[in-house]
Amino acid sequence: MNLDAGLLSPVTVGHDRVTDAAVVDALVTAEVGLARAYGEVGLAPKDAVDAIADATGWDATERLCRGHGVDAAELAAASVAGGNPVIPLVGMLRRKVPESARIWVHRGATSQDILDTALMIVARRAVRQVRSGLDEIESALGAFAGAHRDEVGAARTLTQHAVPTTVGLRAAAWLRGIRRAKDRLDRLTLPAQLGGAGGTLASFTEIAARGLDAPETGPALHERWGADASPATLTRALVSQFASEVTLTAPEAPWHTTRWPVTELGDALVATIDAVGVVAADVATLSRTEIGELAEGTGGGSSAMPQKQNPTASVLIRSAALRAPQLAATLHLASALAVDERPDGAWHAEWPTLRELLRLASGSTATAAGLVARLRVDHDAVARNVRLTRGLVVAERISLVLGPVIGADAVARIVAEVASGGDLADAVRAEIASTDAAGIDVEALVDPAQYTGLGGELVDEALGRPAAIPVGRDSTPEQTTSHATPEEEVP
Amino acid sequence: MNLDAGLLSPVTVGHDRVTDAAVVDALVTAEVGLARAYGEVGLAPKDAVDAIADATGWDATERLCRGHGVDAAELAAASVAGGNPVIPLVGMLRRKVPESARIWVHRGATSQDILDTALMIVARRAVRQVRSGLDEIESALGAFAGAHRDEVGAARTLTQHAVPTTVGLRAAAWLRGIRRAKDRLDRLTLPAQLGGAGGTLASFTEIAARGLDAPETGPALHERWGADASPATLTRALVSQFASEVTLTAPEAPWHTTRWPVTELGDALVATIDAVGVVAADVATLSRTEIGELAEGTGGGSSAMPQKQNPTASVLIRSAALRAPQLAATLHLASALAVDERPDGAWHAEWPTLRELLRLASGSTATAAGLVARLRVDHDAVARNVRLTRGLVVAERISLVLGPVIGADAVARIVAEVASGGDLADAVRAEIASTDAAGIDVEALVDPAQYTGLGGELVDEALGRPAAIPVGRDSTPEQTTSHATPEEEVP
Amino acid sequence: MNLDAGLLSPVTVGHDRVTDAAVVDALVTAEVGLARAYGEVGLAPKDAVDAIADATGWDATERLCRGHGVDAAELAAASVAGGNPVIPLVGMLRRKVPESARIWVHRGATSQDILDTALMIVARRAVRQVRSGLDEIESALGAFAGAHRDEVGAARTLTQHAVPTTVGLRAAAWLRGIRRAKDRLDRLTLPAQLGGAGGTLASFTEIAARGLDAPETGPALHERWGADASPATLTRALVSQFASEVTLTAPEAPWHTTRWPVTELGDALVATIDAVGVVAADVATLSRTEIGELAEGTGGGSSAMPQKQNPTASVLIRSAALRAPQLAATLHLASALAVDERPDGAWHAEWPTLRELLRLASGSTATAAGLVARLRVDHDAVARNVRLTRGLVVAERISLVLGPVIGADAVARIVAEVASGGDLADAVRAEIASTDAAGIDVEALVDPAQYTGLGGELVDEALGRPAAIPVGRDSTPEQTTSHATPEEEVP
Amino acid sequence: MNLDAGLLSPVTVGHDRVTDAAVVDALVTAEVGLARAYGEVGLAPKDAVDAIADATGWDATERLCRGHGVDAAELAAASVAGGNPVIPLVGMLRRKVPESARIWVHRGATSQDILDTALMIVARRAVRQVRSGLDEIESALGAFAGAHRDEVGAARTLTQHAVPTTVGLRAAAWLRGIRRAKDRLDRLTLPAQLGGAGGTLASFTEIAARGLDAPETGPALHERWGADASPATLTRALVSQFASEVTLTAPEAPWHTTRWPVTELGDALVATIDAVGVVAADVATLSRTEIGELAEGTGGGSSAMPQKQNPTASVLIRSAALRAPQLAATLHLASALAVDERPDGAWHAEWPTLRELLRLASGSTATAAGLVARLRVDHDAVARNVRLTRGLVVAERISLVLGPVIGADAVARIVAEVASGGDLADAVRAEIASTDAAGIDVEALVDPAQYTGLGGELVDEALGRPAAIPVGRDSTPEQTTSHATPEEEVP
Repeated sequence: MNLDAGLLSPVTVGHDRVTDAAVVDALVTAEVGLARAYGEVGLAPKDAVDAIADATGWDATERLCRGHGVDAAELAAASVAGGNPVIPLVGMLRRKVPESARIWVHRGATSQDILDTALMIVARRAVRQVRSGLDEIESALGAFAGAHRDEVGAARTLTQHAVPTTVGLRAAAWLRGIRRAKDRLDRLTLPAQLGGAGGTLASFTEIAARGLDAPETGPALHERWGADASPATLTRALVSQFASEVTLTAPEAPWHTTRWPVTELGDALVATIDAVGVVAADVATLSRTEIGELAEGTGGGSSAMPQKQNPTASVLIRSAALRAPQLAATLHLASALAVDERPDGAWHAEWPTLRELLRLASGSTATAAGLVARLRVDHDAVARNVRLTRGLVVAERISLVLGPVIGADAVARIVAEVASGGDLADAVRAEIASTDAAGIDVEALVDPAQYTGLGGELVDEALGRPAAIPVGRDSTPEQTTSHATPEEEVP
Repeated sequence: MNLDAGLLSPVTVGHDRVTDAAVVDALVTAEVGLARAYGEVGLAPKDAVDAIADATGWDATERLCRGHGVDAAELAAASVAGGNPVIPLVGMLRRKVPESARIWVHRGATSQDILDTALMIVARRAVRQVRSGLDEIESALGAFAGAHRDEVGAARTLTQHAVPTTVGLRAAAWLRGIRRAKDRLDRLTLPAQLGGAGGTLASFTEIAARGLDAPETGPALHERWGADASPATLTRALVSQFASEVTLTAPEAPWHTTRWPVTELGDALVATIDAVGVVAADVATLSRTEIGELAEGTGGGSSAMPQKQNPTASVLIRSAALRAPQLAATLHLASALAVDERPDGAWHAEWPTLRELLRLASGSTATAAGLVARLRVDHDAVARNVRLTRGLVVAERISLVLGPVIGADAVARIVAEVASGGDLADAVRAEIASTDAAGIDVEALVDPAQYTGLGGELVDEALGRPAAIPVGRDSTPEQTTSHATPEEEVP
Repeated sequence: MNLDAGLLSPVTVGHDRVTDAAVVDALVTAEVGLARAYGEVGLAPKDAVDAIADATGWDATERLCRGHGVDAAELAAASVAGGNPVIPLVGMLRRKVPESARIWVHRGATSQDILDTALMIVARRAVRQVRSGLDEIESALGAFAGAHRDEVGAARTLTQHAVPTTVGLRAAAWLRGIRRAKDRLDRLTLPAQLGGAGGTLASFTEIAARGLDAPETGPALHERWGADASPATLTRALVSQFASEVTLTAPEAPWHTTRWPVTELGDALVATIDAVGVVAADVATLSRTEIGELAEGTGGGSSAMPQKQNPTASVLIRSAALRAPQLAATLHLASALAVDERPDGAWHAEWPTLRELLRLASGSTATAAGLVARLRVDHDAVARNVRLTRGLVVAERISLVLGPVIGADAVARIVAEVASGGDLADAVRAEIASTDAAGIDVEALVDPAQYTGLGGELVDEALGRPAAIPVGRDSTPEQTTSHATPEEEVP
Repeated sequence: MNLDAGLLSPVTVGHDRVTDAAVVDALVTAEVGLARAYGEVGLAPKDAVDAIADATGWDATERLCRGHGVDAAELAAASVAGGNPVIPLVGMLRRKVPESARIWVHRGATSQDILDTALMIVARRAVRQVRSGLDEIESALGAFAGAHRDEVGAARTLTQHAVPTTVGLRAAAWLRGIRRAKDRLDRLTLPAQLGGAGGTLASFTEIAARGLDAPETGPALHERWGADASPATLTRALVSQFASEVTLTAPEAPWHTTRWPVTELGDALVATIDAVGVVAADVATLSRTEIGELAEGTGGGSSAMPQKQNPTASVLIRSAALRAPQLAATLHLASALAVDERPDGAWHAEWPTLRELLRLASGSTATAAGLVARLRVDHDAVARNVRLTRGLVVAERISLVLGPVIGADAVARIVAEVASGGDLADAVRAEIASTDAAGIDVEALVDPAQYTGLGGELVDEALGRPAAIPVGRDSTPEQTTSHATPEEEVP
């Protein structure tokens, strides 16, 4: 789903992974996953668990509940009083299952177990979508960077033309940012939450102990678990099994007040939005009417002006990038304020914030994928712009090459001459005429295409050809040398 | 509507003033308001305007369109491509009206005119709700502060008991915060937006000029406006009339890139949430199991623990207070980045942000109104806690009164004696026995109720009895003296 | 002091109003102001107060202590242990005054009284500097807007040329933002803080009571205050006098946990930075090499590129504008978390945050004043750019004027013809040839200078000529009409 | 250096790694590192490089310049005009070295190369300090958690007593947060920056090309580099060598507009502050006068109240935790807005922001290390508090164990009986008397110490004994079972 402008609610706009329906699906899935885990461990009777799964539309392949019939609007209304959707949800689910199975709905769990797990389920699904968007972007940017590897344009610093660069090198920088965001998403840990009311897992150990002692379940449990048949072992198995049922990572320990799973997720989502944000910033700038080097393939129309082609995708991505960092800040505040065994407001602040970040990341990567796939370069504009300073885009080179020979004053005279309308090559020739630099190839010297440094190589490396710049924390001069490979000489 | 925890969308939870439906109503209202303004000024034919108003469910009393039949979900879906709901909305509305009236739908306007105006309409309605919540809170807090004017408890600084205060004085401080928030909301300016594509109002002056020249409308316009019948006059009248139609303030000038109407609104909303947030922070703290001085009348239950009474309202308000400041920061960023005549992302970042702030302010004041109305004091707990330091809550007073007479070392001995289990009055008597302070009334000295300073008077003033502390920017010593009025002596 | 880039500390860079030295001056001033207030009220002996004032370099004209000899670095080091500079400061000051006067240093006060008051003193002085910067900006922008009132250029929306506007109108929008920021600063209340340990003023009433009873001071106090000679009256007088001594507003009540004085200050400072930020955003954009319409009179050089003229002032202001909103958010968080009678972290979070905001506001307005004073327009660039779309900058007008006559398809053909290289006037003529619009003045129609709407009038109004657009919350159609005044016709 | 309250500048307070002096040292070090890299690669003559190193106090062991004589205040003042300290720094350094060496100062570099590299040097040194603080905290928390492994207290959720937990388990949760922060810091990449004016490395390839051609250096370079003697190879070697000289990671490519090195650093610093923040939040809460379970070994005094022991360290850490997230948000904004080849404000916004984050992380970990080392438990308070609900802290257990036997109504009667003053064991016995649960061990059932779940095991695992809860993304039921190991039975 592409990014919308956020004026209307996600449920209305239709983001499939972060709609209210998707959140409710995840809440129900967490409850059912717990019941199923009880069944797998041997504490709950199989028929009770099956009845719960059947009544809630458990899809064993997707490991998600969909046909549960819990209405988001009804649940939302019922949540206001207690400030928490899990409390009414448990009642709704219990009413859907046979009486004999009811006890296994939400058995031993606390609201936070279900809510945190559900948010991680929503996150897992949305992150997968984000990752897929980044793959598309990476692929399109790779092609774009390769295609424009040697297209020379102006590098701009602090808004002013500085030196030459290439269209491809700029795209390669975008690509590196995208790739880093992917790495960061791939390193995420999305754990299930199971801790019980105070994070001690006491309710679950109690249930396990009772199960081991009960005449209905004890013998089978002892048979199955043998010497391991202790409440602690069964509790640990329950935690792992729960995570497995909902395809999340099994937590090292309850993380009710250790909120790095949320902040690391938030940080990675913002980093992702930053990475597409910088693409959008460049595209918006470079498609300005006066610059015109880039164009979104399909610009947005205007309600008033028939001639306009707005860089709408870039604008929307930028708006997301302006909002996301402050949302991630809220997650960190919530993390730092996670007092007690469940905090008095900080936990609740995470829910809408994380959900909005998931929406922004998912939408902005999808929109960026479309943008990048359709991005067009106006070669004439690129070429025209690089000449705008009438050659002075290579002033640094002239200073570097001629400065030591003809002196800084002479270089300044060249710059001034061109600035007031003179021709650069002529101005250079006039100054070097009777100096040691007289024999220099002036045409080559002032050619922007011959002052792009390692632009081409940096593009090649970004496209996956073997990196020639040695990377490593402790590289020594010796190592450096040995890494180096022969390269074509640049001017 | 009370605050929900924000897990599900506002549209689902049902906030009446900030639902998607309310936003769509406001968008349609802005379009119809513009058509009606054309009619009032005399540029558009009355029957065309009436046809538009009729087709969109214009309610002349509420000055709002409701029965327009524009579906939020459909509009949202159609908005994604252009990043802007106004573009598809105009099409939808035009299809609803007779062909002859179509030209007067969105005539001369740009998307920003409609969207900014619509957000201000939504804001006006939500702010009215917020204000009404603050009125309720103010009234309840006034009663509460009055009722507990002289109930002595511990003042806490950096978490530790410091000196005595009163339950009423703490509530009076809350009350002052609430009142300031009200003042701030009351000082807000919520202007309509009308500037046309570039903020010059050129399209409207053009339309006015054509109207003045046209044989169908010119004569009537000239008759009505007489010597004032210029395009400029008609354009200005159109702007004022537009604002009047949608009950907003007429703008001094188009504010397309001068975004103080949005940031001042955001700041005032956050200030409001701060004011209820500090109430919630105190209630959450003082209803801790160990402190138990305050209780929300109706606590939230727990999905696992039958005995718990959670301060749910405080928790939800606190979660809003942790989120709101970062949202207001986004509005300021958008304001500072409002480049060009319509910015490339900053404007879009305002929409969901402002809407969420309105939701939080509206919900948290409604929730706080309920909380304050039902707030209960446990007198025993208040009295028990103030004695927890075994009298040392008046240590400052002992230091102030006895220090100059018996010396700092003797005061330290008193503190140490009590800290190790001694009785405060006895310890004081032992130290003053053979000093000039021997005759002091020790029982009075160590009575927390006799060391509450101006607590009572500050409550009275907050309740509206004539302020005795002179207020004024430039108060001089002379003025100060003359302001002072007789007061009962404290201690 | 102009804005620096913030890499080095303010103390090092030399902002005179917000240096460490200025903060220490304000802390000492607050302490001395309190002693002086005791003296004025009649509680402290005049010679003790004079001794304190003398020992701390009290300057009666500036109402500021400067020659106090308290070293910022020494105080800073001593502050770490207790997390609070006031505790060591009191010791330092007491050592500087004769023994008999020592008791009147910090008498009855708590750290927060001194620290909050000192920050308000620093704020008052910095805000005065900010205001003066805004005055300069306002004056320069007024002149600039007037000078370029009729210089026609392109209005840009979402980065694309939209319709014509004027250079002056853009500056008038900046000016309105600046003026609003000024108004906001002018409406600020900067109160002194005096509440004592728990905000009850108990210590001060105690001291007043002892003073009234003491044989040394009682008779004179009763004589001076007559029937008003109560502890409460003297305490109120002390609060007012304290505020007066340090030229702050007397507080309505202690505001130890009611932090609107801090958040309103923060919001106004950010609003100020927003207002200069939007100027900087436009200048940075419009001085891009390709656009070149504006130039900072004195651009920054480059360490590498001799030809560059960077818009350094704009860049620095923009960097401040990107940082300030998040700082103000921290102030709001602190406000909402102001629990108890002094909070456990939130209060401390305000100090460096507010100080940095003051520095940014002060530096960015000073820098903006210089920027605006030296801002240059390249008339050729403005004129060249407005023609870049080969006339289509008036496409909206053609659509408005001709659309109803020749139909939308014909307008689209005109746009397409020009987009592919045709001449606009020719294309228009071709389409209108055999229509009712045939007689139209095509040259006038396509002239950008004749499609700037109320641009000129809006500039005039911003410059202070009587506003013709009626402003008012409840303007009715009748009122609207009567407000309208004759204006020159625009096109 | 411990955390100060931030009222005065870091330079004044004396943080050794983030003072202005440390920043200036790093700037000079970056310049000297570049000169040395030229020397190592063979482009610069050894004596020129040595002259530069000598004149700037290069310390070959620490790889840092200290005795350079560049005054921070002078540099700061000179930086204002250009908005950048590197420009005046280059001039200062050139004046310090012999004329023949001058050309090798800042040769080919752009300000950003030096500034980004310097900030990474500062970061590396501060992060090392942070890491060392975290090691101390980890060690102290491990000892603390072990010592209090079985000390039973109340778990609190939403401020209310919920179920039993242990003092050790709470500390183990803190410990896991600290460890995660360490991991995150250890995974950081801190690269040097070298890209030249536009990120193409063109100046360096030019210098390399000239060097290879020059009669003075060409032969030696060709001899040394053999077949690799190309400008590209030498440039790559220069980049690696530069990083090595200043002990940073060699960058994969210039990261002038790909700012993940800054945002990942910022995120990790905030995560660190979050981790100590949550410790501080719990310590501040649990050392409240009414709770009194924890005490900072050395509390802060009060300027007014002799009896107070404030949790000053916690308060300061909390104040840092309230500020840090918004600073990290600014870094992300800067990253997303990194337009062009050097952005127009975003880059500058990073400098003071990152520096303040480094200061907060460094100070708060040092302060937390002290806090944790001296943290004291009041066993009586812990034991007293867990009994505050008169046994209802095990209500969940009673519901779980007895609910299925005696029914929910009977459980509710037990809770109500105790809530109104009855004894829990008696109430349980009365309800179970004639039920199947009659034989249950009531004393054991109501003993909080027998309802702490896996508390002990979770502590053991946090202390490094083999983890028994299987961790893994894709754990299947089978794997889960096989992972489980025998454990003592809980209750």
